[in-house]
Amino acid sequence: MLAEIITIGDEILIGQIVDTNSAWMARQLNLIGVSVKQITSVSDDQEHILDALAQAEKRADIILITGGLGPTKDDITKITLAKYFGMGFRIDEGTLAIVTEIFKKFKRPLLDINIKQAEVPDGCEVILNKNGTAPCMWFNKDNKIFVSMPGVPFEMMYLMDEQILPKIKAQFKLPVIVHKTILTAGIGESFLAKEIEDIENDLPENIKLAYLPKLGQVRLRLSAKGKEEDTLRAEVELFAKNIIERIKQFVVVDDDIPLEKAILNIMKEKGLTLSTAESCTGGYIAHLITQHPGSSSVYWGGAVSYANELKESILGVREETLAGYGAVSEQTVIEMAEGAVEHFKTDYAIAVTGVAGPDGGTEDKPVGTVWIAVSNQSKTIAKVFNFSNKRIQNIERAAISALTMLLNLLKEDYLKE
Amino acid sequence: MLAEIITIGDEILIGQIVDTNSAWMARQLNLIGVSVKQITSVSDDQEHILDALAQAEKRADIILITGGLGPTKDDITKITLAKYFGMGFRIDEGTLAIVTEIFKKFKRPLLDINIKQAEVPDGCEVILNKNGTAPCMWFNKDNKIFVSMPGVPFEMMYLMDEQILPKIKAQFKLPVIVHKTILTAGIGESFLAKEIEDIENDLPENIKLAYLPKLGQVRLRLSAKGKEEDTLRAEVELFAKNIIERIKQFVVVDDDIPLEKAILNIMKEKGLTLSTAESCTGGYIAHLITQHPGSSSVYWGGAVSYANELKESILGVREETLAGYGAVSEQTVIEMAEGAVEHFKTDYAIAVTGVAGPDGGTEDKPVGTVWIAVSNQSKTIAKVFNFSNKRIQNIERAAISALTMLLNLLKEDYLKE
Repeated sequence: MLAEIITIGDEILIGQIVDTNSAWMARQLNLIGVSVKQITSVSDDQEHILDALAQAEKRADIILITGGLGPTKDDITKITLAKYFGMGFRIDEGTLAIVTEIFKKFKRPLLDINIKQAEVPDGCEVILNKNGTAPCMWFNKDNKIFVSMPGVPFEMMYLMDEQILPKIKAQFKLPVIVHKTILTAGIGESFLAKEIEDIENDLPENIKLAYLPKLGQVRLRLSAKGKEEDTLRAEVELFAKNIIERIKQFVVVDDDIPLEKAILNIMKEKGLTLSTAESCTGGYIAHLITQHPGSSSVYWGGAVSYANELKESILGVREETLAGYGAVSEQTVIEMAEGAVEHFKTDYAIAVTGVAGPDGGTEDKPVGTVWIAVSNQSKTIAKVFNFSNKRIQNIERAAISALTMLLNLLKEDYLKE
Repeated sequence: MLAEIITIGDEILIGQIVDTNSAWMARQLNLIGVSVKQITSVSDDQEHILDALAQAEKRADIILITGGLGPTKDDITKITLAKYFGMGFRIDEGTLAIVTEIFKKFKRPLLDINIKQAEVPDGCEVILNKNGTAPCMWFNKDNKIFVSMPGVPFEMMYLMDEQILPKIKAQFKLPVIVHKTILTAGIGESFLAKEIEDIENDLPENIKLAYLPKLGQVRLRLSAKGKEEDTLRAEVELFAKNIIERIKQFVVVDDDIPLEKAILNIMKEKGLTLSTAESCTGGYIAHLITQHPGSSSVYWGGAVSYANELKESILGVREETLAGYGAVSEQTVIEMAEGAVEHFKTDYAIAVTGVAGPDGGTEDKPVGTVWIAVSNQSKTIAKVFNFSNKRIQNIERAAISALTMLLNLLKEDYLKE
């Protein structure tokens, strides 16, 4: 089964935004056994959109369209779809009710331009978008479907997850696909591949192994295609078990969840608490953790101690330590981590201090030098890393490295065989 | 002048990577007056690539192609381009020298498969890629150009910056394009459009206005096309001035920078310092701020006070306040903000406490209830918001709202006319 994704709007074509929607949609489609043949970004130009729709219809069965559904003049997706399918317009009462409610909630007057949001081509099925004023429209044509969604990522994701993917699964005969993900950290893609080469070579035709590397982590994803879910699940679990056995020390979790979520799960189960003391990561570790619902049962909070004064006042780092060794040093990071455990009264703490760049480097401590420590109530482990000269990457890599160190400490403390 | 971008390879189509290359290329092209008509991602399938090339040639004058230039069997860009242009192959000596040198440097044996990297269609001009083994190939056809580049971002960026963009500027007669961006916050797209409707209607043919909304903010971008940069700049500035005058209270900054960067710029100029006290935003505001190089001259740090204990111990929120009014309350958020100013010794502070969800809501304080306060050393302003039931969006909206409140306080204190 083939799909195509068409994004409409100038934002991508002028380079104002990166098209993250399409990658997300492609991943979800692949997970249910639909391959994506082409992704096309076109401008708000009717002839061009019509042409893109016709081209996509020739190649694919499922055409997913995002964007161009706003209330302003440059948003022409609806009128173009009506033209493509030769339809007129109707007011969709469900959408009108949502639009009215949203404007009432925000105490804004409902303008004509907003009421127009509820107008849809009369032959489409409306899928209610509970998160915004743009309707989601589903068109059937000769066993093919066209679905038009808003380009706002969370509105699109919610609609895909809750409505469109289930409807696609119900309408098309898709193969059964079973996935199993193993998250690893601390080993590169090519070394991993070498470690498990024989297991990979033994995989049957219907099971594929993908390496998905990202920032010091590699996700291994086994995907089995077939007819019978239970059989596929058993097959995949067996290969996963062999892989995990082989690379045990690098396995973070055998599930498709991020590193910090795996840590939260372990700590929650063991009734443990965590705090953070962040300098160069500037709150990014706290943000990664607190993205997850329920994180408050484990994570108590922490300090973003950018200024040395705050390292002293909140974390109790000694003035002599800062003066003698500098803010980016083993001594400072240890006092930060131990200070967090002590002052925030948690079982574990993470501390990070470094030179994120692009300025602030010295010969001794060039940009990318990052000290990380993890502490429990009796032990602290500190390590220095030398990342790149790119600020954002340094922040992200430092965060992942810190979380990996915490996971290893937790494993040492609790998951030893 | 129109361009199209074609990316070749499965990584994007299976959702493994986000296509950041195309956005970057589009931005660079727009800056030199080349509009991008379409961005297309196709798989490693010869017929499909040939079709995409033919389609692009119909619409555009400049066709930029990335990807599919690796040494393995699934990389078929070169052979497909040779077929498209009816060319044979030759060995490019310059590329061969680079390949040989790279393998020597990494002490790896030079295999036949690597030597093949230096084979190119015999009618193309090779642009030497100093950062990798894949050649960059430039084809001229009937006043149109096709350029094939590696998909590795830093190789592509270097080639574009150093070679391809200058060559395009030399070969084509390009218009001058001038952009001007106005960032607004606190007003929706449709209300903005209504406010400035007459100004928009009065825009001359060569100036376009785009609305780029994102999380409670809307960017207005004026783009003028013409021949003479100074004239265009003056024209655009005039319209921008009229727009800013009309919607003054919603204007964050008349520049293409994010909200927090605008705040950092103002505070740096005035020599002011900032701290944060975050509960439900969990470090996200700190992260937004500390992404920016040089933020440490303004931002001293802050607390992520997820647990009530930390609200008391780090920020000095009184136990009676928490017990009497709850963690999500006007009283608590005021004490958090004032506590941050006092304990972290900064000129300004932001505090946020709320129910991010999906759990933790009550009848009184449903999920999405967020109290935000901003303080200077003599005044605190607190406000309650009712966002949605989505955790990540609540965090992002709360952060943007908090930053908007801070900006307004700064404007009141420093930018009054």
